[in-house]
Amino acid sequence: MAEQDHSLPTGVLEALAAIVGEAHLRLGEKIRELDVGEDPNNLGASALVSPASTAEVAAVVALCGRYGVPIVTHGGRTGLVGGGTSSPGEVVLSTRRMNRIERLDPDERVAVVEAGCGLQALQEAALPHRLDPGIDLAARGTATIGGMISTNAGGIMAFRNGVMRHRVLGLEAVLPDGSIYSDLTRVVKNAAGYDLKHLLIGAEGTLGIVTRAALKLEPLPAAHAVALFGFPSVAAALATLRRALAAGVGQLRAAEAMWASYFHHVARHFNWSAPGFDMSQAVYVILSLGGADEESLQEELAAILVDLQCDHPQITAVLAGSLAQEQAIWRLREESGVIYRDHPDAPSFDVSVPLSELDAYVNRITAGLAAIEEGLAPFVFGHLADGNLHIMLNRSAEATSAPVLAAVEGVLYDNIRALGGSFSAEHGVGSKRIHALYATADPVKLRLMQSVKQTLDPAGILNPGKVVDVSRLPG
Amino acid sequence: MAEQDHSLPTGVLEALAAIVGEAHLRLGEKIRELDVGEDPNNLGASALVSPASTAEVAAVVALCGRYGVPIVTHGGRTGLVGGGTSSPGEVVLSTRRMNRIERLDPDERVAVVEAGCGLQALQEAALPHRLDPGIDLAARGTATIGGMISTNAGGIMAFRNGVMRHRVLGLEAVLPDGSIYSDLTRVVKNAAGYDLKHLLIGAEGTLGIVTRAALKLEPLPAAHAVALFGFPSVAAALATLRRALAAGVGQLRAAEAMWASYFHHVARHFNWSAPGFDMSQAVYVILSLGGADEESLQEELAAILVDLQCDHPQITAVLAGSLAQEQAIWRLREESGVIYRDHPDAPSFDVSVPLSELDAYVNRITAGLAAIEEGLAPFVFGHLADGNLHIMLNRSAEATSAPVLAAVEGVLYDNIRALGGSFSAEHGVGSKRIHALYATADPVKLRLMQSVKQTLDPAGILNPGKVVDVSRLPG
Repeated sequence: MAEQDHSLPTGVLEALAAIVGEAHLRLGEKIRELDVGEDPNNLGASALVSPASTAEVAAVVALCGRYGVPIVTHGGRTGLVGGGTSSPGEVVLSTRRMNRIERLDPDERVAVVEAGCGLQALQEAALPHRLDPGIDLAARGTATIGGMISTNAGGIMAFRNGVMRHRVLGLEAVLPDGSIYSDLTRVVKNAAGYDLKHLLIGAEGTLGIVTRAALKLEPLPAAHAVALFGFPSVAAALATLRRALAAGVGQLRAAEAMWASYFHHVARHFNWSAPGFDMSQAVYVILSLGGADEESLQEELAAILVDLQCDHPQITAVLAGSLAQEQAIWRLREESGVIYRDHPDAPSFDVSVPLSELDAYVNRITAGLAAIEEGLAPFVFGHLADGNLHIMLNRSAEATSAPVLAAVEGVLYDNIRALGGSFSAEHGVGSKRIHALYATADPVKLRLMQSVKQTLDPAGILNPGKVVDVSRLPG
Repeated sequence: MAEQDHSLPTGVLEALAAIVGEAHLRLGEKIRELDVGEDPNNLGASALVSPASTAEVAAVVALCGRYGVPIVTHGGRTGLVGGGTSSPGEVVLSTRRMNRIERLDPDERVAVVEAGCGLQALQEAALPHRLDPGIDLAARGTATIGGMISTNAGGIMAFRNGVMRHRVLGLEAVLPDGSIYSDLTRVVKNAAGYDLKHLLIGAEGTLGIVTRAALKLEPLPAAHAVALFGFPSVAAALATLRRALAAGVGQLRAAEAMWASYFHHVARHFNWSAPGFDMSQAVYVILSLGGADEESLQEELAAILVDLQCDHPQITAVLAGSLAQEQAIWRLREESGVIYRDHPDAPSFDVSVPLSELDAYVNRITAGLAAIEEGLAPFVFGHLADGNLHIMLNRSAEATSAPVLAAVEGVLYDNIRALGGSFSAEHGVGSKRIHALYATADPVKLRLMQSVKQTLDPAGILNPGKVVDVSRLPG
């Protein structure tokens, strides 16, 4: 046993080691050796345990409850809003060792996995059955299913398949009192009382620790085809989206949008261009169709272009004719991190806006940011079909003062709930967005959130300081 | 004002009339003039109010809370498990007057409706935009959106589009304290704190009264084609289902199954047969494909048959070549009520079973019922792709003694949760299935349900005696 950490009560470390085995308890510098992930404060805890089973998780939670030691649960540490930050006196519970795919039944189209199973691992296991988890995101190699459930992850297919909440058929979780909530149903229809798993989904580890889940899988088309479209207006992009959603051949699987300033930045970075593709458009959208064979899907993409050019002759498009071309197009959207090279740690945001409000919203925030400071502007990209915009400032974190940041949030979040949108589309609340939640949410909802937190976790053992602020009166 | 009903506290009726207007308050026999719906005890209340707005609903709830008068909310009264039964001393709140479609935006693919809006009314309003609520069920003409949300309705497209819970983007509801929970977001991605609308969805009016909702709409295919298949085995039916889910042309929109005894009963009733269609099969399934044009969809259905006949040469099928043929096929499945002609009020059940367990389940319950009493047998039909089986006894309610009924439930619900299924797929719990919930549910879940009910509705104002039994200790 390593030296005692005085920020934890005497006896806790020995008891934790007895539960998970000494090899699976890390202390001090041994914690800091791990990959810290997307937030520099993820690994501030006094101890990190890696249980191997639901029973071990339950024992850890019961133990920490007895000693009053808070627990922060970690999956892949890909969260962007500080949902996994930890401090001395806290214990991090990593689901890393609980990564099994316990069942994958092609007739049921259901997978049962442990929380630490990676998204890509599940995608790869489902592939031979021509099935797919129905949800995909850029962090697929690192993000875990448990983390995606706890943050209600979204990604690029949410407009078709829903967000993580809609993929979960059954759930097992350890509650703050150490009891095990066991609802591993593998059916989509279940009207057997309150569906309390939805309290745990998206609660970012504040109401329970997800240990296992049954997930719905989707048939994976045999072929796909990808095109990049350039549009003179958001209206033209939306008209094309409607046409693509009603495709006669195949199904739309992605509609990823990039507004001009973002697009030009990444295209320049990757030195991307294509013969005949007009780079002076207002919005660019990657459309991906899935279906039975590639040739007919490419013909359908070409037909979409022809159909839409009747009303919008300026529309331009390039079809990916090879895997290399396809990857080069996708890179423009997925490698948004290149913005950070010019603007280190540029403040970034993640909002949802109903599609009818999209154009006005982007215009309004563009004007609003310019009014805060000359030259301040947003890079805007995201998921067109569900109105989820990712917004990065053209300004490093260091160069953005606190008052400017507050003014930016004021512009971005102004009236967003009344508009029918959300200040947090898929990144959650974590520790960094609590102020935005309390600034924008319905006070009745905030009050109910606090009641629920206090009912389930009266001692505040699970992920304190995240999502909900029990000390705060909403209003 | 009619004569005072002594089962209500003095002053309540006057106050209710002041809120909704005297014309919208019914008492005594005036209540019994209404269509009682699916349960003879729906209209036992002392008063029935029909508010016109969320504000009026909130005022009614606050008033009843002050007087301690329970409220039972009614939509279309199509519930099958007694979720809407009411007694003297209670007030029924009908959403009948709150039936507006407030918004239907084809670009957003979102509708915002009041709770009393009927499913068919919404389907008809969406049709000109080639959109659809994405959920359908036989009671479409009567069922309301609010009722469907409160019971988390399922229907025939749940395998593709999810159940009602998955269709709701935003929700407004009146909570038991009379406050208004307002979360009418119109986006699918919303990670802004606990998603508490899921507490209200499927709670059958015990935690709040749904007043408005924003619903996701789906593109409606231009054409569809329907075929009835006959299969020698469930395995052959499931293999065909997998092939149909991966259809190269069009998308599967329905896969409705009928086991032999049910099928033969209804086919005989409607005098249905088709040339060359072999009626000696074990399972019959209606497959419906939607897509761009009918001819190619019919070709795809024919191709599915040919593909599957390689492994299962006995498979038989008939394609609907006309609307009349299509309707005749659908009638076999949707007019399940004809069973009642021979077996009045035959006890019926509604379970979900994972697809890999389907065949064994039906075989087990068939044997189990026969072991209870000679000749006792199930009529089985339902939604193949999501494992939702409807089961009716070949026995009138009158001829089924309480001990036999209990033995039947013992057989049907035995081990169903451990199997990964549910004793209630889409009909809910209501007042009639509470014993089954408490017999099959995880005790941790039951305890949490009771905590949630007590947190939200400590006085037990909303729909008491339904879903959750606060007086009961689970275990």
